[in-house]
Amino acid sequence: MLSVVEAQAIVMQYVRPLTPVMIPLTSAAFGLVLAEDIASDLDMPPYDKALMDGYAVRSTDLPEGRGILTVTEEVTAGQTPRLPIAAGQAARIMTGAPLPAGVDAVVIRERTRMLDGNRVEIDDRPARPEQNVMRRGQEMRRSEIVLKAGTVLRPQEIGLLATVGRTAVSAHPAPNVAVLSTGDELVEAGRMPGPGQIRNGNGPMLLAQVCRAGGIPNDLGIAPDQVDELKAMITEGLRSAILVISGGVSAGKLDLVPGVLQELGVQAHFHKVAMKPGKPILFGTLGGVETRRQGDRETRREATSDDIPCLPVSLSPCLVFGLPGNPVSALVCFELFVRPAIRRLRGETDPGPHFREARLRQDFSHRSDRPTYYPARLDWCDQGWHVQPVPWFGSADLRSLTGANAFVLFPAGDHTHREGQVFPVLVTDE
Amino acid sequence: MLSVVEAQAIVMQYVRPLTPVMIPLTSAAFGLVLAEDIASDLDMPPYDKALMDGYAVRSTDLPEGRGILTVTEEVTAGQTPRLPIAAGQAARIMTGAPLPAGVDAVVIRERTRMLDGNRVEIDDRPARPEQNVMRRGQEMRRSEIVLKAGTVLRPQEIGLLATVGRTAVSAHPAPNVAVLSTGDELVEAGRMPGPGQIRNGNGPMLLAQVCRAGGIPNDLGIAPDQVDELKAMITEGLRSAILVISGGVSAGKLDLVPGVLQELGVQAHFHKVAMKPGKPILFGTLGGVETRRQGDRETRREATSDDIPCLPVSLSPCLVFGLPGNPVSALVCFELFVRPAIRRLRGETDPGPHFREARLRQDFSHRSDRPTYYPARLDWCDQGWHVQPVPWFGSADLRSLTGANAFVLFPAGDHTHREGQVFPVLVTDE
Repeated sequence: MLSVVEAQAIVMQYVRPLTPVMIPLTSAAFGLVLAEDIASDLDMPPYDKALMDGYAVRSTDLPEGRGILTVTEEVTAGQTPRLPIAAGQAARIMTGAPLPAGVDAVVIRERTRMLDGNRVEIDDRPARPEQNVMRRGQEMRRSEIVLKAGTVLRPQEIGLLATVGRTAVSAHPAPNVAVLSTGDELVEAGRMPGPGQIRNGNGPMLLAQVCRAGGIPNDLGIAPDQVDELKAMITEGLRSAILVISGGVSAGKLDLVPGVLQELGVQAHFHKVAMKPGKPILFGTLGGVETRRQGDRETRREATSDDIPCLPVSLSPCLVFGLPGNPVSALVCFELFVRPAIRRLRGETDPGPHFREARLRQDFSHRSDRPTYYPARLDWCDQGWHVQPVPWFGSADLRSLTGANAFVLFPAGDHTHREGQVFPVLVTDE
Repeated sequence: MLSVVEAQAIVMQYVRPLTPVMIPLTSAAFGLVLAEDIASDLDMPPYDKALMDGYAVRSTDLPEGRGILTVTEEVTAGQTPRLPIAAGQAARIMTGAPLPAGVDAVVIRERTRMLDGNRVEIDDRPARPEQNVMRRGQEMRRSEIVLKAGTVLRPQEIGLLATVGRTAVSAHPAPNVAVLSTGDELVEAGRMPGPGQIRNGNGPMLLAQVCRAGGIPNDLGIAPDQVDELKAMITEGLRSAILVISGGVSAGKLDLVPGVLQELGVQAHFHKVAMKPGKPILFGTLGGVETRRQGDRETRREATSDDIPCLPVSLSPCLVFGLPGNPVSALVCFELFVRPAIRRLRGETDPGPHFREARLRQDFSHRSDRPTYYPARLDWCDQGWHVQPVPWFGSADLRSLTGANAFVLFPAGDHTHREGQVFPVLVTDE
C-alpha cells in the first residue's frame, strides 16, 4: 500500500498553479500569489524629503549644533519649496515634505525655538549631513524590480503595489472547490434523522476546510447511493478545479463512487493509502482539454497523463479526491492531500502539509497496523512545542476534535510512547 | 508618555464583543466566535453502529477468534436491521450501519471468507466485546452541551454543529472597519504623482490588514487637508465599529484630524505612545447611543466614558484610531492596537498582539530614544526561534517590509545587542 508521502508526491505531479488572471488591488488580492515581476514606475521617495517635523538646514551652518537661522518659508507635505536655502537660512518643514535646494539635514522641532516671525534658534547635537533626510530614490528607483513573481501578497506588498502605481496585478486565482457528500443515510442539518440516518456534518466541515485552505467553496449537497443521480452531481462537480467527495469510496457494496468516476473518464491514480484514519482515499484526475489556435483553426485534444508533467498553464485538469465518510478521516485526508493541492493551485511554493516536532507530555500506549494521525493538543511552553493526544473514540468521533488543534503522528505497531519522546505533529489550525 | 502596554490597556477598556447575531452555517460562519452554548438534540451515534466493514457477531461465538457463522442479512449505512442475531449467526455489515440486536462486536472483512450464499468463515484474534463497535450516545447524549459560548468555529466545530441539527448559530459578527487616508500630498494608485505628491499606499495596505485581522474592510479613500471635507468623510467613517485614519495626527500645522474629531464629539483617550515607529498615535471613542424601550416609550441617551466599563452589549461605541502617515508606522500601530481591538470585537478571548521569544542571529547595534519595533525575519530552526533585523531606512520605507515577517522589539537606549540574546518578537503574518 502507498505511504502518505508517496501518495502526496503522486497528487503533486498533477497540480500546477492556475493560469494567472488580472486581480484588482482590493481585498480580493490579499493572500494571492503574484504571477509577474513588478517594476517601480518612479523613484521613491520621488524627491529628497524630510523624515521629521522641524527645520531644513545646511549642516555646515551648525558644526556645534547651535545657531540662529533665518526662516525663508514653510514647506508642508504636498507642497513644492519655492526658495533655495543659502548659508544662514533654514526652512520650516513637515515630515514627508520635499527639501528645498541647498539643504542636507533636518533638525527636529523639539530642538528649536522660534524667536520672532522669521528667526529660529537651534540647540542640538552637531548637525550631521543627511540627518533626518531621505534622498530621492533611496527606497527604490524607477524600473527597478520591487516584487518578484511568486511573492505572497500581504498588507505590505499591497501597499507597495499601490505606491508603484498598480491598481491590478497578475496573480494566480483561488481555485473553485466543489464538495459533494454521498450516502443514503445522510440528511441535511435542518432535518431530524430517521432510523438509520445521520445528518451531513462532513459537507459543512469540508466547505470550511476549503475556506481555510484558501479555496472558493461550492456546496453540491448530498448525493444518494443511486448511480444516475450520483453521476449527474459528480459531472457538475468536475467543472471545478477540485472535486471533493465524501463517502462511498471504501470497498462496501454500495460504495459507488469509484465506478461512476471511471465511467465519467476520471483516471484513478490511487485508491488506498497506509494511514489511519483514512485508508480508503481515492485520487483521480479528469485530464482537461487543451485548446490551440492557429489562424482560424482551433484544435482541441484530450490531455493524457503523459501530458501532465509538462502541463501548459492553460490546461487545467480537475483533481478528484474521494474521502472516507467518517468525519475525522475526511478531515485528516483533506489536510494531508486536498489542502496542499489547493495551496499549490494558488501558486504557493510551500504548500504543506506542515509538521512540527513536539515532545509528548505523558506516556501514551498506542496500537495500529498503520501510521496514525491521532487528534492532539499542541502547545508552546517552556521554550518548546509539547503535544498531548486527546481522548478519542475513532474516526467517527468528530466531537473529540473540538479539543484538538493538531494530529500527532504515531508509527504503526504496538508501542508505549514515552513522555518527552519527539513526534511529528500535523498542524491544522494555521 | 504612555508605554505601549499602558496604551493597549486603555484601548481594551473600550472594547466589548459585538452584539451576537444569527449567522447561517455557511462559509460566513468560519472563524467566528460562538455566543451561545450548543446542546445536542440527539444521541450520537443515534444507534449502536459498526466502525468497520465486516460481520456483526456475538463475541461469545468466537472465543478463539475462529468459527463458521450463518449470515442472516446484510445491513448497509442508512438501513435498519430486520433480524436479531442468535447464537451461531452473523450479519454482513458496512461501516456506519446500525448493529442488529444481539451482537456486541464486529469482525473486519479482511479476516473473513464467504463459503457460500449464507455462511462465513472467520479467522481472527479472539473476539472482544465492543470491538469495532460504537454504542448509541457514546460520542454525545441528547441535551448535553457540546460546544460552549466563546468557542472559535473551525471546520470541526462547524461539522459538529450540523451534526446536532444547527443551520444557524448565534455568534459575534465581524466588525466593519472604515479606512480613511488623509493628506493633500496623496493621490490614488492609478495616477502619476505630481511634484510633492505621493501615491496612497496606506489605504490599500490598511484595508488588507483589516482583512487579515478578521474585519470587514470599508474603503473611504483620501481626504484632503481641508476641514469641511475631512469632517464629512470622518462622519461617514464614524458609522463603522472602527474608524482607522492614516496621516494628519502628528503635531504639524496641517494635522487637522485631532481638531475635527473633537468637534465631532470623539473623546480622545491618548495621542502619543512611547514607541518607534509610530509615536503620534491617537485613540478616541464616540460614545455610542443606548436605546431603551419601555412599553411604547423609547429613550435614547448618549453614553459617557463612565458607562463604558459596564457597557451592555447593545451599546457599540465607535473606536477611532489616528495612525501616523508613514507606512511602517501605520502598519505597526495597526498590529499593536487595531488588530487586537478587531479580534476582541469578534469575541476572541486572546486578541493579541502575539509575541514570541527569539534569539538574535547576529550582533546588532541600535540607538533610539524609544522602544523600537524593528522589521525582522523570524524563522524556526535548530529547535528554536531565531530573528534577524532586515535592512531598513525608517518609517517611510515600506519596501523593507517585503523581506520581513515580524518586528523585533529593541529597548530604548544605545546598545550593541549580541548574537544569541533573546528578544520579544511581534508576529504579524499569522
